[in-house]
Amino acid sequence: MSTTVGILGGTGPAGRGVAIRLASAGYDVTLGSRDEQRASETAGGLSPRGNGSIGGGTNEAAASCDVVIVATPWDSAVATVSSLKDQLANKVVISMVNALTKEGRELLPLYPPRGSMAAQIAHALPRSNITGAFHHLPAAQMEDLDSDLRADVVVFGDNAEARTATVQLVNAMAGLRAVEVGSLSLASAVEAFTAVCISINIRHKAHTYVQLAGLDH
Amino acid sequence: MSTTVGILGGTGPAGRGVAIRLASAGYDVTLGSRDEQRASETAGGLSPRGNGSIGGGTNEAAASCDVVIVATPWDSAVATVSSLKDQLANKVVISMVNALTKEGRELLPLYPPRGSMAAQIAHALPRSNITGAFHHLPAAQMEDLDSDLRADVVVFGDNAEARTATVQLVNAMAGLRAVEVGSLSLASAVEAFTAVCISINIRHKAHTYVQLAGLDH
Repeated sequence: MSTTVGILGGTGPAGRGVAIRLASAGYDVTLGSRDEQRASETAGGLSPRGNGSIGGGTNEAAASCDVVIVATPWDSAVATVSSLKDQLANKVVISMVNALTKEGRELLPLYPPRGSMAAQIAHALPRSNITGAFHHLPAAQMEDLDSDLRADVVVFGDNAEARTATVQLVNAMAGLRAVEVGSLSLASAVEAFTAVCISINIRHKAHTYVQLAGLDH
Repeated sequence: MSTTVGILGGTGPAGRGVAIRLASAGYDVTLGSRDEQRASETAGGLSPRGNGSIGGGTNEAAASCDVVIVATPWDSAVATVSSLKDQLANKVVISMVNALTKEGRELLPLYPPRGSMAAQIAHALPRSNITGAFHHLPAAQMEDLDSDLRADVVVFGDNAEARTATVQLVNAMAGLRAVEVGSLSLASAVEAFTAVCISINIRHKAHTYVQLAGLDH
């Protein structure tokens, strides 16, 4: 039986892009939303290529999957995962959340009380294994399977097995290469750099993403 | 007459790499150090290719140049620039300082009281125009003019003219492409990401650097 992946708050651009590439890699994906109907409609509008599937449902349904990705807006992430604490226990929970605020034509990083959104989520889910991934990705290119995406995805987390599981998930997805960096202590730096990528995009009218040169795998 | 560039704390690996590529682009560079003799010896050991020169001297000598780069260790940066406040007035001062601390096999970002080292330096130099650049570069490849370096350098700062001057300086250097991102508010995110690059290097025994895909200049 294939691994199932749930995406909390999965109907936004970030969640959709990850969903379509996961399903195209053979995973069965549940897009979760507070609005179950919107989740079903969004899932129905995505056409993965491969053996996987995308369905829509509640966040509870998404949280019942084998692996769960948090893709909610940053200011609802803790409330969402806290309400699903028991279902998420003993699972790998991947945060792709960035706390950002707009100021003029720039996106700027916010630093949550525990330093990062991944740390906020880890504190809310003491029985889950938190990792981080998918932070710097261009949503439009993620969703377009014909785009020539070759992005590096920095993966962090305190639990080595959970990091390995996350790396495997990322590397299964077309156009992405996982780069394991280390512990959750690096989450603030990874999350905040998303503000740099998006601010560059706004200024240069581009769809930038990060490639790490000089890494042979 | 060509532009002169001074590098405060320029005898370390980061300063040397920037010096050799600036001199190879035709700039006359002064490596500054608290130890004048070490600065002269370090400068004498660097062989730029081109019309520029590299000399060694005191940090005072480096501060008398047209443009000044801060490459000291993070914990001496504010003391160094504060003592040169008058000489640095009305100049573009480029911070390449990252506040990092080692924990096990990782480098982790420190967040200075004003959010970033560039902001600390800006506060210490109210009459100078502070920008940031050169944060994510691999020192060994910077110093080796035969390396196949093609790195993107994120440039930030509150003063548009100073940013433009910094972009021009970076783009004159072989192997580097400047990417203007915006204001000093983004400094913390740029500086902290250096910890991610170095931690990846330690874990993967690599010399990683950042390329931003999808940007046409």
